[in-house]
Amino acid sequence: MNVNGRPYRTIWVAAEDRVRIIDQRWLPHQWIEEDLCCTEDVVRAIADMHVRGAGLIGATGGFGMWLAAREALAASGTNGFLDRLDDYAKRLATARPTAVNLSWAVNRQLSAIRAAGSPEEAVTVALKVATDIADEDADCCRQIGLHGLEIVRQIAASKPPGEPVHILTHCNAGWLAFVDFGSATAPIYAAHDAGIAVHVWVDETRPRCQGSKLTAWELGSHGVPHTLVADNTGGHLMQHGMVDLVIVGSDRTTRTGDVANKIGTYLKALAAKDNGVPFYVALPSSTFDWSLRDGIREIPVERRGDDEVLCANGWNDNRPAEVRLAPVGTTAANYAFDVTPARLVTGLITERGLCEASEQGILRLFPERA
Amino acid sequence: MNVNGRPYRTIWVAAEDRVRIIDQRWLPHQWIEEDLCCTEDVVRAIADMHVRGAGLIGATGGFGMWLAAREALAASGTNGFLDRLDDYAKRLATARPTAVNLSWAVNRQLSAIRAAGSPEEAVTVALKVATDIADEDADCCRQIGLHGLEIVRQIAASKPPGEPVHILTHCNAGWLAFVDFGSATAPIYAAHDAGIAVHVWVDETRPRCQGSKLTAWELGSHGVPHTLVADNTGGHLMQHGMVDLVIVGSDRTTRTGDVANKIGTYLKALAAKDNGVPFYVALPSSTFDWSLRDGIREIPVERRGDDEVLCANGWNDNRPAEVRLAPVGTTAANYAFDVTPARLVTGLITERGLCEASEQGILRLFPERA
Repeated sequence: MNVNGRPYRTIWVAAEDRVRIIDQRWLPHQWIEEDLCCTEDVVRAIADMHVRGAGLIGATGGFGMWLAAREALAASGTNGFLDRLDDYAKRLATARPTAVNLSWAVNRQLSAIRAAGSPEEAVTVALKVATDIADEDADCCRQIGLHGLEIVRQIAASKPPGEPVHILTHCNAGWLAFVDFGSATAPIYAAHDAGIAVHVWVDETRPRCQGSKLTAWELGSHGVPHTLVADNTGGHLMQHGMVDLVIVGSDRTTRTGDVANKIGTYLKALAAKDNGVPFYVALPSSTFDWSLRDGIREIPVERRGDDEVLCANGWNDNRPAEVRLAPVGTTAANYAFDVTPARLVTGLITERGLCEASEQGILRLFPERA
Repeated sequence: MNVNGRPYRTIWVAAEDRVRIIDQRWLPHQWIEEDLCCTEDVVRAIADMHVRGAGLIGATGGFGMWLAAREALAASGTNGFLDRLDDYAKRLATARPTAVNLSWAVNRQLSAIRAAGSPEEAVTVALKVATDIADEDADCCRQIGLHGLEIVRQIAASKPPGEPVHILTHCNAGWLAFVDFGSATAPIYAAHDAGIAVHVWVDETRPRCQGSKLTAWELGSHGVPHTLVADNTGGHLMQHGMVDLVIVGSDRTTRTGDVANKIGTYLKALAAKDNGVPFYVALPSSTFDWSLRDGIREIPVERRGDDEVLCANGWNDNRPAEVRLAPVGTTAANYAFDVTPARLVTGLITERGLCEASEQGILRLFPERA
């Protein structure tokens, strides 16, 4: 998407020996591009969250394997190339503990590389596969955007001319979490780019404030009108007819349509139901966990450190800064996700189209999973 | 309630010419007591939020009128005493724009003072009335605590021995907002002091973080076990059976039982309903607005400044500090309250006892309002 009028992806090939990323730790306060030139650069970028979001982590892992192949070739020539590459692959695949897309991308590369005729050919193949992974991610999000656009278009048609469609979103399921477009944001960007007036209510998304820091930044950079609100606000807005549509992303969705997403999503789904506001979840189909049926019982919810709740991290005097909110000695609980039961979800927006959040609805789009 | 084992109220007579308050702007990071010696001290303490909360603002206004009477007597003797006092009364009554308790306390003092035989007697009467207002506020909260205690006791009796009753609360309807005990916290303190094991989930309550800063502090100071959570968390906790009871306060309640309270209360009420968790509102009856029937339509909701949402205020390096969360140029909307419809409220806890959140239920306790 656009940043200061210039189109960007979150990762791209910068030269024949490097990829470039946006170091997202500094957003929204500073724009820092970073070159990754070897396996360890990529491991560090993933582990220390220079890049984050399932789609982008997968793509970064894919490009990491290209750099790993270059490095293995330089270090070993044809002797022990694959052994060395296996070591690099393990480093990459374990850079973040629970990133399914990461190990998927690394394994896809390993298969392609093993099928190559020589280490030199392997390097060429690895670049091709990495580019394919990134392009497929972007294309998948673009498709989600086109399907979601129709929902926005219908709502726009039912409103007085010139009145924007008010869309609420939670956390950052934006282009910064993927290669381009995002999942929840894809229909928003598609509608905005198609000339439909949209206005986005951005939940700040405590405790990490991905809404304040990332979603507000990317919408602003692309020129989409938006307003930041505390996470407590969405219910009030919906009671007063100020929200036409909710779109969120998902970290994991069961085959029955239960949706794990950033903590607080469930509360917004309840408010949407109570006020007759459509509540959609936008997700690439790689987010489905086909083995699960009961999201609340079966999806494990990560607990993160207390400090994120006890403090707030931001920017002060041109540098990163933290303030303590709670008294010394206070204990906090920091659950990262919650599960929204399928009964509260109006529909799922996938790259194959819209479906009901039910096993029947999902399998109609993905019959191969029956 | 206790602070480091010593019992406190939020306001008390410190000497024959002054009252003392806790300057709450510094909590939870510093304990600062402040003496108020004249009308302007009191106006500043109220206007600049050294004290806050309906009950405490009323009590402070009451003591302010005692200091005003002393000041008017010293300045004018018997000549023009009442005129001067009227001026002070106006200053005090308008120190905060929407504090109903404040003008109520000032007017109650004016009536009592006008009935006194002399300015000297008026000063004596004003101290008595101020003390009465404070004592009545504390007693009202104590009664709320005793009625609410029965709810906690019943839940405790239904749980395995030793297992605490888990109570979620939002914002600070604690003793710091009143003279003592608080409204939402009164049943919690009463249960704790009665030896019933309780554990409180404290919503941080963005954007002003009264939960992190005040509720966590006062519960900790009194020795009540508690855990701080982001506002997004309550739904997840309730889905997993980790909340037995929700108790919140109220800023204004209609005669039909619709409850205006800190923004985000409505979302917790929805989650409580969805999970069969009892949701109680604790309020002194002065909180009822007997003229209103439809809370969502009729209760105006204050919009505060953007900065509270764009930034976070806390403590760093032993002094107050602020960090910016959102990008420069971001617009925010900062609604201070929302309205929870009566249908989501299990019951109201008042100083006269429990009642259903309905006109019929409320009028059974307050028949004089029929």
